[in-house]
This record gives sequence, C-alpha cells and structure tokens, in this order.
Amino acid sequence: MAEKRKICAVITARPSYSRVKTVLQAIKAHPKLELQLVVAGSALLDRYGTAVNFIEKDGFTINDKVFMVLEGENKTAMAKTTGLGVMELANVFYNLQPDAVLTIADRFETIATSIAAAYQNIPLIHLQGGEVTGNIDEKVRHANTKLADIHFVTSEDARERVLKMGEDEAYVFNTGCPSIDIASEVQKSPKLDYNPFEKYGGVGGTFSLDEGYLVVMQHPVTTEYDAAKNDVLKTLRIIDELKIPTFWFWPNVDAGADGTSNGIRSYREKNNPKHIRFFKNMEPFDFLKLLVNGKCLVGNSSVGIRECSYLGVPVVNIGTRQNRRLRGENVIDVAYDEIEIKKAIEMQIATPKNKKSFVYGSGDSGIKIANILADIPLRFHKTITY
Amino acid sequence: MAEKRKICAVITARPSYSRVKTVLQAIKAHPKLELQLVVAGSALLDRYGTAVNFIEKDGFTINDKVFMVLEGENKTAMAKTTGLGVMELANVFYNLQPDAVLTIADRFETIATSIAAAYQNIPLIHLQGGEVTGNIDEKVRHANTKLADIHFVTSEDARERVLKMGEDEAYVFNTGCPSIDIASEVQKSPKLDYNPFEKYGGVGGTFSLDEGYLVVMQHPVTTEYDAAKNDVLKTLRIIDELKIPTFWFWPNVDAGADGTSNGIRSYREKNNPKHIRFFKNMEPFDFLKLLVNGKCLVGNSSVGIRECSYLGVPVVNIGTRQNRRLRGENVIDVAYDEIEIKKAIEMQIATPKNKKSFVYGSGDSGIKIANILADIPLRFHKTITY
Amino acid sequence: MAEKRKICAVITARPSYSRVKTVLQAIKAHPKLELQLVVAGSALLDRYGTAVNFIEKDGFTINDKVFMVLEGENKTAMAKTTGLGVMELANVFYNLQPDAVLTIADRFETIATSIAAAYQNIPLIHLQGGEVTGNIDEKVRHANTKLADIHFVTSEDARERVLKMGEDEAYVFNTGCPSIDIASEVQKSPKLDYNPFEKYGGVGGTFSLDEGYLVVMQHPVTTEYDAAKNDVLKTLRIIDELKIPTFWFWPNVDAGADGTSNGIRSYREKNNPKHIRFFKNMEPFDFLKLLVNGKCLVGNSSVGIRECSYLGVPVVNIGTRQNRRLRGENVIDVAYDEIEIKKAIEMQIATPKNKKSFVYGSGDSGIKIANILADIPLRFHKTITY
Amino acid sequence: MAEKRKICAVITARPSYSRVKTVLQAIKAHPKLELQLVVAGSALLDRYGTAVNFIEKDGFTINDKVFMVLEGENKTAMAKTTGLGVMELANVFYNLQPDAVLTIADRFETIATSIAAAYQNIPLIHLQGGEVTGNIDEKVRHANTKLADIHFVTSEDARERVLKMGEDEAYVFNTGCPSIDIASEVQKSPKLDYNPFEKYGGVGGTFSLDEGYLVVMQHPVTTEYDAAKNDVLKTLRIIDELKIPTFWFWPNVDAGADGTSNGIRSYREKNNPKHIRFFKNMEPFDFLKLLVNGKCLVGNSSVGIRECSYLGVPVVNIGTRQNRRLRGENVIDVAYDEIEIKKAIEMQIATPKNKKSFVYGSGDSGIKIANILADIPLRFHKTITY
Repeated sequence: MAEKRKICAVITARPSYSRVKTVLQAIKAHPKLELQLVVAGSALLDRYGTAVNFIEKDGFTINDKVFMVLEGENKTAMAKTTGLGVMELANVFYNLQPDAVLTIADRFETIATSIAAAYQNIPLIHLQGGEVTGNIDEKVRHANTKLADIHFVTSEDARERVLKMGEDEAYVFNTGCPSIDIASEVQKSPKLDYNPFEKYGGVGGTFSLDEGYLVVMQHPVTTEYDAAKNDVLKTLRIIDELKIPTFWFWPNVDAGADGTSNGIRSYREKNNPKHIRFFKNMEPFDFLKLLVNGKCLVGNSSVGIRECSYLGVPVVNIGTRQNRRLRGENVIDVAYDEIEIKKAIEMQIATPKNKKSFVYGSGDSGIKIANILADIPLRFHKTITY
Repeated sequence: MAEKRKICAVITARPSYSRVKTVLQAIKAHPKLELQLVVAGSALLDRYGTAVNFIEKDGFTINDKVFMVLEGENKTAMAKTTGLGVMELANVFYNLQPDAVLTIADRFETIATSIAAAYQNIPLIHLQGGEVTGNIDEKVRHANTKLADIHFVTSEDARERVLKMGEDEAYVFNTGCPSIDIASEVQKSPKLDYNPFEKYGGVGGTFSLDEGYLVVMQHPVTTEYDAAKNDVLKTLRIIDELKIPTFWFWPNVDAGADGTSNGIRSYREKNNPKHIRFFKNMEPFDFLKLLVNGKCLVGNSSVGIRECSYLGVPVVNIGTRQNRRLRGENVIDVAYDEIEIKKAIEMQIATPKNKKSFVYGSGDSGIKIANILADIPLRFHKTITY
Repeated sequence: MAEKRKICAVITARPSYSRVKTVLQAIKAHPKLELQLVVAGSALLDRYGTAVNFIEKDGFTINDKVFMVLEGENKTAMAKTTGLGVMELANVFYNLQPDAVLTIADRFETIATSIAAAYQNIPLIHLQGGEVTGNIDEKVRHANTKLADIHFVTSEDARERVLKMGEDEAYVFNTGCPSIDIASEVQKSPKLDYNPFEKYGGVGGTFSLDEGYLVVMQHPVTTEYDAAKNDVLKTLRIIDELKIPTFWFWPNVDAGADGTSNGIRSYREKNNPKHIRFFKNMEPFDFLKLLVNGKCLVGNSSVGIRECSYLGVPVVNIGTRQNRRLRGENVIDVAYDEIEIKKAIEMQIATPKNKKSFVYGSGDSGIKIANILADIPLRFHKTITY
Repeated sequence: MAEKRKICAVITARPSYSRVKTVLQAIKAHPKLELQLVVAGSALLDRYGTAVNFIEKDGFTINDKVFMVLEGENKTAMAKTTGLGVMELANVFYNLQPDAVLTIADRFETIATSIAAAYQNIPLIHLQGGEVTGNIDEKVRHANTKLADIHFVTSEDARERVLKMGEDEAYVFNTGCPSIDIASEVQKSPKLDYNPFEKYGGVGGTFSLDEGYLVVMQHPVTTEYDAAKNDVLKTLRIIDELKIPTFWFWPNVDAGADGTSNGIRSYREKNNPKHIRFFKNMEPFDFLKLLVNGKCLVGNSSVGIRECSYLGVPVVNIGTRQNRRLRGENVIDVAYDEIEIKKAIEMQIATPKNKKSFVYGSGDSGIKIANILADIPLRFHKTITY
C-alpha cells in the first residue's frame, strides 16, 4: 500500500479555523491523506478565545503548538511575531517532514508559514488567494500566492486574479469557500437549539430572543490602527441607541485589537448596556445558527460576505475591510458613519430576508480540496507563466 | 527648508552591494534625500568577503549592522536566518524611522527587509522585480514585488511582468540596472591598472596575464543543494584541463554555499592547480576591469548577463540560474556538462569580442532612481489593479 | 574634563521601577555619571500598568524600548521571553556601549540583562542579591549574582550570603534598599493628599475612607502556577466577608499572572463586591501614602517586608513568597488558609501600629549607590574567592 | 514495571561530547533510565568537526538537533546565540518532557540549557561545577550551579566550592571526571592501532611517527578575543622552529575562534610547515591513544589537566585557561611567551614520563552518575543553605 501524503495545516487564529474546519475533516477522512495539525499564535491564547480548545473538542489531534505572539500594542510587535513564527515553524516542519504545508488567507502571520515551508522546499498550498482588501492583508495575501505552489480559491473572480498574477492554471482551483460547507450543514437544521447565555457565558445583559436580535462582529482594520477605538465606538453607540437585543463578538488579535477591545471595554464599564451580550468566541456551527435566526449581522466580518450570502442573512457591512469582494444581494455597505450605520440596520430589519447566492460555493469545498490534494503531482519549483 | 526624505537601504550580501552602489551614491548626493544604510547578514561576515569593509571604504556611513546568519548547512537554517532578520530589522526600522525602505532583488533574506518594513507601514521600494529564475529566488522576488509599493526594474520585459502581476503603472519604473552604471564608468578607462595578486592576495597559483585569462564565478543553485559540489567540480575539472590562466571567485552564502566551497577547497587541496587563483572578493570596479580584459567569463553569475552584455565580454553561462533573463549576443548557454562547457569556452575564446547591447540600461540608473524617489508621493496602501 | 561613566539600567517591570527610582535619580544627578535607561518587557504593556508612562512622567529619558514578552499562559513562554530578551538586549547594549549595566533582583527576565551584558564583557551591577525565596526566583537571583561584578544588597544578611557565595568583598555593598528612600520621603509628609478613585480610576466599588481601609497585593508564586487562581480566591473571599473598604492591586506578569488575574476577574463578575476597588497600578509615592494611612497590607508583596517595616505599617503576609527575608515586627505570617488570613487581619487591625525598624536602610540608598558607581574601578573579570 | 526516568542531555560542542560520552553510555544502559539526546550549536557544524557524526557512529539515537549558532566574529553574536538557544531548547524540552535535563560545564551556550530547563520546572543536572577559570566561562559555570538542582563534580576541591556556594550536600557528588573513564579504557590497550593520516585526513605535512611527536591543542581564551591570533602564532612559531613532528588540532567555536583559526590558516599558507599535520577532530579514543604515544601535549586544553594526569602524559600548559584547577605532576605551566614555551617543551621531552595521579577519578564516573540519577529524589525547588 502506498504511504499517505502528509498535509500539514497551520492554524494561527480562531476565524481561520472556522474557515478551514471542513478541509481539515476531509483531509483527515481521506484514505490517501494524513493530516498534521499545528496550532499557533493567537489560536492558543485565552485573550482571543482559545480556539485550540474547540479544535481539540472537534476531535483533531494536534501535532505541535507554537507560541509566537509577542505582546505589544504596535506594529513592530506584529512584525516580530511574524519573524518569530518563521523561526518556530521552520523547526516544526523540519520535525514533521510534511509532503505539503497549508497556509490560509491573509493574516499577517500566515506569511511565516509560507516562508518556513517554501524555504525548506516543501510544496505550499494556499487557501483563499486572489481576494482584494486594499491594505497590509492584501499585500500578505498576494505574497502568499507568489510563495505558494497550489492555490484553492473561493470564487471565480479570485481565480482570475491568481491566474493573472502568473500562476500555472493547472495548480489553481476554484473549490468555493470551505466556510460554506458549514453553512450548508447549518442550513439543513437551522433551529437555534442551544441557549447562548448558558452555553457561552459572556458578559453583559441577559435578554429574551423572542423579538429577534442583532449580531455584531467588528474587527480593527490593521493599517488604520489609531482609528480602531474610534470606529468601534460609533457602532457601539448606534447599537446602544437602537435598544435591540444584540450579541457582540470580540475581535481577533491584530496591531489594533487592543484599540477595539479597549473601546468596547471602556464603553461597557461606563454605560453598561443591558441589551448587549459580549462573547469571546463560539463554535462555528452555533455561530451560524445564531446568524440564521437573527435579524441582521453588523460589522466588517467576512462572514457577512460569505456564509451570509449562502444563508441569505441580511448584513450591514461597515467600512473598507471587505472592499472589492464578490457579494450577494444580502449586503448593504456603509462607511464608519453613525447615521449611515443606523439607517442600514433599520432597512435590513424592515425588509424580508434576502435572496441567497452561491458565489462562494455549494457546500462541498472541503471534499473537493482533499480530493485534489490526494492526486495532484506535488512540486516546489514553479515559475511565472509570462 | 523641507526636511529630507530618509531612504533606508538594507544590504545583505556582497553582490547586492555591487549592484546598488550607484543608487546609494545618488541618494546620498541628492539634496532632497538622506541615505540610511543598514548592513546585514553575510555582508558582515569574513567567510563571504566582508562586503562591509568595501562599503565603508567607499565613504558610506553605516547606520546599523545586523548579524542574522544562523550557521548550518541546510535549508532550515536559511528559513530561520530570515525569521531572525525580520525580528532584527523590525527594531532597526523602528529606531531609524525611515520614510521608505529599499530592498534588493531576490536573495532569500531580502523578504525579511520587506516584511519588517511593510508590517510597520513603511513604504517599500523594490529593486529588480519582474525577473525570472524558476526556483525559490523567483518566489522570493515576486513576493517582494507584492509587498512593495515602488518598483525599479532593469529591463522592459521585467517591467511588463510587474505590471501584469497587478502593480500600479505609476509606481513601476524601468530605470535600467544600476550595475550598468559602474560598467559604464569602467568602459571609460578600461585598462587593468592594478595587479590582482598583489592587491587581493587570494590563494593558488601565480601566473602571467600576457596570454589572456578566464574568470570563473559559479554559485550554488539554491534548490539543487545536494548537487552544488558536483556541479562546481565539473567546471573545475574543465578549467584545470584547459590550463588557461584563471581567476576563480568563491560563491556567496546560500544553503548550498558550503557544498560549492567544499568542492573547490577539496579539489584545490588534492590537485593544486597552478594556473588558477582563487579570490574571495574584489571591488566591483576592479572586477569589471578584470572581465573587460579577460577572454571570457564562465559560470552562472548574473554579471555575465548584465554588465557583460553592456561591456561586450564573452560569457559561458552554465545551468539554469539565469534562465529566461534577457541577454545580449555575448552569452553562450550550456548545461552542467563537461563537454558542453569546454566546447563553449573554446568557441568564445576563438571568436572576436561580441557586440554590445543596452537591454539593461545606459549607465544612469542610480541617478534616475534617486530623482524619482525625491518626488514620488510615498504611500504604503496599495491594491491589485484588476 | 573626564568623560562621564555611562550606567545603563534595564527596567522590565512596574515593581522593579518603584524599587530603583531613587537610584536612577541619583545616577542622573551625579556629575560623574550618565544614565542610560532601557524599558523592556511588561513595563511597556498596558495589561501590567504601562510603567513606562510613570517613568516618562518622572522626567527620565528612555534610550530604548524592548518588546520581548511572548504571550502564553505557561512556563515555556516565560523561558522564551527570556531568550528573546537576551537577543534584543545584546543589540541594545551593542548600540548604547555602556560602561556598566544594572540589573535588578530576581524576576525571570532579569537574567537576560545579565547575560547580554556579561557576554559582551560589560561590567554588570546587580541590585538586591543575597536574598532568599526558595523557588525559581531564588535560582535566578543567585545566578545573577554569579554573573555580576558589583553587588548592592539591601541588608546585612544578604551581604553575608553574597560573600559566602564567593564574591569579592571589595565589590559587595550593603547600601540598604532604594525603596526605603521613597518611604523616607513619604514619611516626611504622610497625608493622603489625593483621591484614589479620581486619580487612578480603577474598577469596582466607591466608598468612604473615613473608617479606614485595607490594601491587598497578591502575586502568583511562579512555580506554583496551577494554584494561583485558587490562592487568590481565598484572600478574595475573606476580604469580601470582612466588608472592610479595600484597595486591591492586580499582579504583575508571571507564568501564573493570568491565573491570578482570572481569579479576580471572574470573582468580580459574579459577586461584584461593592467595598473593593481594583487598581492596575499607582505611582510609588501615592501607593506608600495609601499604605501609611491604611489599616493593614494583606498579600505577599515585598513592600510589606521592606517599606512597611520602615513605615511601621501592619502586614498580613500570606504564603511562601517572602520566606526567609529579614522582617520587622510589623509582619504576621500566615499560610494560604482562609481562617488564618482572617484572624491575622483582625489582629493587625485591633492592635496599635507596630514599631518601625531600619533593617532595610535609612533612606539614602540611591545616593550611596551612585557615589560608589562614580568611583569604583570597573572590571568584568572576576573569580570565586575560594 | 515502573516507568524509566527520562534524562535529557544537551551536547553543544565537540569537547563536551568527549567528556560525557561514558555518562551517556551508562544512562543508556541503565535499566531504570532512558536517555534523550539533543545535539546543538557547534556540535552540528562542519567548521567545528561535526561532532554529531561521531555521536551517531557511537550508536546514540539523537532526539533533536538544534541549530543555534549565529555567525559573526564578535561577542554580540555569542550572546545572541545563547538567547536563541534558550528559545529553541525551551521548545525541545516542552516536546520531549524529560524528567531531568543535563547541562555540561561552562561553555557560554550551556546556560541556555539551564534556563530552558529551570524555567520550565525541570530538574537540572550540572556536570563539572565548582571549577575555577577566571573569565566569562567561570561566571557561566557558577551561574549554572545556581540554576542546577543536582551537581556532579570532578574533584574534591570542586565539591567544596559548590558546597560553599550554598548547595545542598545531599545533591552534590564527587564522581570524578567522566573523561577519565575513556582514559582508563585507553590505558588498557594503549597501542596506536591506526594511521592518523589515513583515518583522519587533515591537511599539512605527512611524516614518520618513529621518532615521536608532539600534539598541540590551543583554544582562544574567550574574553581575550583580540589576542587570540597573536597567541596562537607564538606557539606556531615555536613548533615550526623545533621541527619535531606535530599533530595540531583546530580550536572549537568561541568569539575568538576565528582569530585562532585565521592565525593558523594564514601561517600555514605562508610557511607551509611540513612537519605539522592539522586536524579538525578525532574520536576521543583515538585522540587519547595519540597522546599516550606522544612525547608531550602543548596548548591550553583541559585534556592536559585531566586525562593526561591520569595517563601520565607530559603537558606544557600555556596561559591562563586552566588556572586554579587541580593538576598532577605531569604539567608545566608557562605564559604566552615563546622562550618559556620552547624551554618547557624541551624539558618535558628530555625527562622520562611523569607520574600518574587520580585526582580526577578512577575511571567509573559514568556508571556512578547513572546509578545516582536512577534513585535520587528529583526536585526543582531548592534554596541556599545559609
């Protein structure tokens, strides 16, 4: 019997895990593949929801844990975290000897995975290349593309961009987004079958869900560090003013995370809004059920663009974070402007649920990716196509 | 009076310095610019020719020195050197507070400069983007392009590639290669006005230059690590067999450097070829004079493709290292094959000097680059053009 | 005129700063000395009170800031923070070229300062050697002693221990503890001349100070990591039960800091004790005034042993953290036992204020240390005396 | 059946391995112990004799390899290598989960092993504490002692020093030096049963051994970096002048190693002394046989003090490196002075072989150490005894 291909995935943050969970499951289940799982960075830290606990609870075996987040509320620390990540992950790959390494999307530290793999001549798989955001994340994403050998993208426009950047067509696949796989599961039994207050604790008010509720998830925009606190306060004030029951999720770690977190924390201390409940984290499945049963998602999470388009959940998307990404009809885009935000929320609540769209896949991304990985000729030599 | 723009250049290796020397001079001389110079990596190390000494001798002030080369004859060390470089250079840029950072070409550690600058929102200038080599160097080069905000390329085909990768036309400039600036100086007084044996010492035989001589410069090809020793031995045997006086230059540092170095060292110990002189390094000016007055350059150095095309020096280019780069009529390409190598050398020696070409610029790259840097609007936000 | 001696002090945590403030002032003021100040580690971080702000407010110029705290709730991160500190501080000393480096006491990361200095042949000054604690802190403290060239200790028993360890008598000085210098200032005008709630914010209840109050400061004990949360909850429950107004200070960073912090945070969320106010930090001067005017200090801070003995403030010292340190009559020692803690607090409140003692100096340590540093022959060669 | 105790030894240099080889063998062979072996630093590098190859050839399984040597001819690099070592070894111990870690003697990077273990609450075993050398090595050695929990020393005077430093008598053992174990094996069959030229290659002259020969091993003295080249040249000139066949061994890595190495290399290039053969390394067994059959050992290696005293080999010990170590009658001490060196060599050659002494043990250290490690109660809490 032939040996299994060892695919080593590196998870560095909570949202990355949610996004690739079905890929990891499909790799694990595939007879010709072996999954090696490395959990690193903020995915290990209590302050960011200890994603590692969810990962273990989902039945995955973790091959290595890599502590690499250098504390400090500044961009220098962000760069140094990345440098440290390269050093640590170089060791990890040296020890695990994977046949290919998988890196995800565009977070600043994902390039550490890419360098540590590419420099050791390990074929690099990149998920979610070809998307546009317009700041350091986009620089990182496209740099990851140029370091990677195999590309799994989530939409046709992304696929075209990756090809235009000079990647070999035989190694670029639009498999849809693996996050849609989970949305598709949720779709099958969408009932909110748990009590969010009991299951997840959180802090803030307790309230009835009978009249419906909002969900907010607003991340700092990395290169607009100083404005992070300011931005989140605008949304907070509107939500507070609207007095609609709201589930609010803390942001993941970035150079500006503490600006956003501090904004939320200080507002809460002073105003103690009784109709808002703050959570650190939720299992992806539960989170999507919460969305499906809610009135509207507010913020700048990519979930609004992806899963919500498939699920038909109304979204008020604030600011530039999701710029130039394909979206369905479920999204209203607004600036960081209190009046605009308010108006858009009211509009989304007033109208019936939006039409669904399948621009990000049809729910079988994980399996598609695993199947391709099982058979594609692996290589670490490539050259630009023009 | 307006403050000068601080341009921080990071030199990590001997050949990089040679290549950008006139850029550094032009920045230093420009009334609207201030040069910050960081010397790092192998450019500080005795084993690789201590480029830092040449830099200081050329009258440059060095703002910081960064030791970052992790010893080890393997790719893991190469990755970790890069990670360490990110950490160190993040500090350096934090302290120097440059208005823009300049990174050069495609060596593995240049991405450390790119990350340390980009992650701190410092506009990044990349020299020599858009070229093709087909291994890890090319991955690094294009990743540098995607992290950089301003691009100075050396030829029209390179410019087109950078544009195709989605970079903004207003920030991509074909200024020719700065190395041609030095070649152009040499052209003006090409006489060999120094004695190589006396000025540079070196080891090996001493011989007359009256009957002409060869120059050899052969680097390991990074991703073909194990073959490095083997490859260099082929060239060595042919050169030894030909019995033509030869100046041979040690390679710069890479994962395979010690393979190449050991190959040379062990051959020399055993066979003691009296018509070969081995050097670690030479001042760029002297090196080009040596080439102009020689019969032929043998190996895989990019000097053969660039400077030699401008100067019309015959070149035998071995292997894949210079693949798909624009070249003039002065080059004969051969594989790592002893018979091919020998035949090509004999052919180059037999025919009269080749025609010159100006595909890599006309000798004023440094000044062109400084002029652009003085006035271009600096920015660190960009997005792909399609 | 002779050049000034450059003394480089590295401050890595809030309490270390309080302890050496007068030493820094005396060095700065001394005509033959120049102060170089490096702020590093948790002293830079918001989570630990941003000591750097107090340092700047006190009029010190900071020569370099070193981010080195690797996040993670475990001992591996503690070790790696130290390793990172060595790398960073090696650079810092290389750039600052001090004549001597000053390291403080026994925190885990202080050995990074010691190694970075000693390995570069920079004379190393150690403050507070020779004390006993019985865990990793003590190992670090004595290792610092063996790496250091000049020793300033705070009591006679400490001096004897350092001598017994084989240090040269001519380089070991009992100058008393610099923290007593500040206590001595406070002694001169002990009135509580500020409103703690207004000046320091904090979270929790607001209350009158007329009937007196307690102060609590309880740090995790590093090598008893898992028990940190448990330990702090015992004290919390007793304080909550006693219903006496209380100022509670968050702990500084350690492997167990998050255990302690989480204990406090979760207790507060659930029980919301209205007679407790939680603070992150206070200027040393204000803190001592708070103590002088309070009924009793509870916890395991060394302030209870040192400053409070000089000031005659009653102390309930919990657990092993201050084991085998000289103490005055102001201290009652108890185990982590709720009954014992309660009884001891009641006893301290019931009896009149304790007698003062001067075992830790008479208020002029800073000046004594600066005077010695101005004239002592500096050296980095030493050998054991037996 | 009880689980075996896992003892993790970290080997960072060629001479350290020679010294502890029998300890490793005894641990491996002991029914109650399991050996975990980590090879790190210069022990992995070609430039320093690739000790790792000898280790594998001796039948040991290597659990992890740690590349940590930062290149650079200066003390800053030495410090940073150590910091890097802490970071890397912290990971290694976290993964291997040993019951105790073993660190050896006084090389600068051994403190990295100590910190990485002690900070993770892993009991630390230190070999060869309590010896005196008078420079940074001694600082490191005693700092290691203060971080360690179990001490195996090589002589009575060392044991007394460790006790005086405040270590617990129940955890300090004079087991003799493990290097004597190998000497004792050699003693049993001392014939030179291999041809050094054939077996080890090396460079330089080839000569007959019939008339006897010298052996030279001279290391740089770490804190006298600049003098390293100068020092070695004195010995070289004398040896060259004496014209006695000589085997010369390259030094191991230190801040001054390149000074010494360059001194040797440049002298050899110029003078090409035909009666000297230069080696990088030798298996310990072969090396001792070479000594036993030679006329005299010249230099500053500790082998001259230890193994040679047991074996009765005459030694000319140059300079301060072995200061204040117990020695037998076989040693003549001289300064770095050409006349003194020459006279001492002539004297040693003239007189019959010296008396043997057993101050460093009787050849069973390895077994003694393993036996103690099998049963001693392990702990990581300790406190000074006074």
